Amino acid sequence: MSKKNIQVLLVRRPQGWVQESDFRLVETELPALRNGEVLVKHLYLSLDPYMRGTMNDAKSYQAKVELEQVMRGGIVGVVEASRHPNFQENDLVSGYLGWQQYSISTGQDALGRNIRKLHPKAGIAPSLYLGVLGMPGVTAWIGLVSISQPKAGETLVVSAASGAVGSVAGQLARIRGCRVVGIAGGKAKCDYVVNELGFDACVDYKAGHLAEDLARATPVGIDIDFENVGGEVLEAVALRLNPLARIALCGLVSEYNEIAPQGFRNFGALLTWRIKLQGFNVGDPDSLKLWPQAQSELEQLILAKKLTYRESIVNGIEQAPGAFIGMLKGENFGKQLVKLT
Amino acid sequence: MSKKNIQVLLVRRPQGWVQESDFRLVETELPALRNGEVLVKHLYLSLDPYMRGTMNDAKSYQAKVELEQVMRGGIVGVVEASRHPNFQENDLVSGYLGWQQYSISTGQDALGRNIRKLHPKAGIAPSLYLGVLGMPGVTAWIGLVSISQPKAGETLVVSAASGAVGSVAGQLARIRGCRVVGIAGGKAKCDYVVNELGFDACVDYKAGHLAEDLARATPVGIDIDFENVGGEVLEAVALRLNPLARIALCGLVSEYNEIAPQGFRNFGALLTWRIKLQGFNVGDPDSLKLWPQAQSELEQLILAKKLTYRESIVNGIEQAPGAFIGMLKGENFGKQLVKLT
Repeated sequence: MSKKNIQVLLVRRPQGWVQESDFRLVETELPALRNGEVLVKHLYLSLDPYMRGTMNDAKSYQAKVELEQVMRGGIVGVVEASRHPNFQENDLVSGYLGWQQYSISTGQDALGRNIRKLHPKAGIAPSLYLGVLGMPGVTAWIGLVSISQPKAGETLVVSAASGAVGSVAGQLARIRGCRVVGIAGGKAKCDYVVNELGFDACVDYKAGHLAEDLARATPVGIDIDFENVGGEVLEAVALRLNPLARIALCGLVSEYNEIAPQGFRNFGALLTWRIKLQGFNVGDPDSLKLWPQAQSELEQLILAKKLTYRESIVNGIEQAPGAFIGMLKGENFGKQLVKLT
Repeated sequence: MSKKNIQVLLVRRPQGWVQESDFRLVETELPALRNGEVLVKHLYLSLDPYMRGTMNDAKSYQAKVELEQVMRGGIVGVVEASRHPNFQENDLVSGYLGWQQYSISTGQDALGRNIRKLHPKAGIAPSLYLGVLGMPGVTAWIGLVSISQPKAGETLVVSAASGAVGSVAGQLARIRGCRVVGIAGGKAKCDYVVNELGFDACVDYKAGHLAEDLARATPVGIDIDFENVGGEVLEAVALRLNPLARIALCGLVSEYNEIAPQGFRNFGALLTWRIKLQGFNVGDPDSLKLWPQAQSELEQLILAKKLTYRESIVNGIEQAPGAFIGMLKGENFGKQLVKLT
């Protein structure tokens, strides 16, 4: 009995903002499983800002997605059939298996990495391996613990503070004794950041007086900037940096859809205040070594209910393009997922 | 018998480019020396790009010069009279004693640091303590050895390559086995950088095709950028950075006279290629500890004739404002000094 598989292909490279028409949904028939292959039924697809970069025809640390190919993306799924010695029916797995309902592979994902088997402890939902316990959570941990090296009493600012990465980075910094100030878009997100995530303050960049509000929220300046946004947000932060401050450069979501990004106009602050900035990625060789330590701390915090997270879930693979575009515009709230079953 | 002292005062804060009329020369009479004071006759005044920043009314790591006060600057001088227990007539000294022919102090300079006694080895000219053995040379050493941590075989690019800092940074990198590419303005400077300083290549940024020329000179990309200039020079470098490259951010001379600097438009490269950037200053607490080690290596290299330098000398304190403006425009060649006697 053959199965249908709906896939999302990249069919056009966006100039500027992504359009739904840059994607095309296709329904294909899954072929019969051959020796050495595993069939995975996808439960959740992760949508993340980095994906915007894979749509470009540009030299980058991440390979681009070819036109007419399935969009790359991390999923959590369940093995539905296996002719591969390492996998058995009902195994819970994770990997970069793409924007689709099913995948057939030889046990490696689109990045050439082995598909990982998951063994969630009681109380851990599988979707968390795409969020707080997966790439975004580990990104937050590495950017904070390894790159920023926070000390108790320091002031940390994190942009996109209600997002999958920012929310974890800020909470981890609070646990380490920092004063934590979020930057987010709109009152609802800022209320969430302060009241539910427990940040000391949150500045609404949409309120129209970012520099003044940030100055008020950081009376003794900024020691660490966990940067997810760039552009005007970064430039406001630069005005408040203390000497010898650090910037963990994790994302520049304000730039991803700009044809001519403004860049960093008051970049001179990095010289004036002798700032240490580091761009990083969770897939770097140095980062990959830290995954077990990061995931272990995050899992313990989740089980102890010391880490709050929020998921923003749409239903059905057909919703993926629209939800992705919304996320790039900041319309999501917390980790953006597509539920596929 | 009273002595005359010609001083250069800052009388107006420049908007944009420095003008000679931002300064005023005054002739004053030196008062009689009191107990605890030392009279220093200045032999050489150092002119350096950082001085542009001290003319602004802006918050910075370096205190601004007040209007109607003597411009701040490093000098080498000789003690002409002393009523201070630590100094004797004819002692050779160095310190931030200002743009003037003489200074009277209680043994501390304009930065509150003790005036340093110099003991040059045979073959070491006193003026070198303002250049290759002084602040610029130590800046180059710290930016290269401590900040950039070069490995043999890496490609290093240094802008303002014929200048007091860049020339030393590049030579130190060559000694450590790097491929070294300079960026300088004009054919004469580029010829000097390759033929006399021994760099592997030099790109003339005034020739009009910087990005193409830099690509040709760095066939396997750039691992370290020793950045003195910023603006378009930095943006061309950013296009050639290898993954995990480092940027030692030492200066941004292209910006110092701009009211609205362009900043760093393709700053996103630092995220894409996971770059480590560090702004630094030779007067930082971490840097100050490294001075003895840096000066010791530089002195040995000078005595062994393994380090080439060039001085650009004008005569008379009256020439200081013009020479300073020329240096900011890149008209000097090597370390810019004013000879005062």
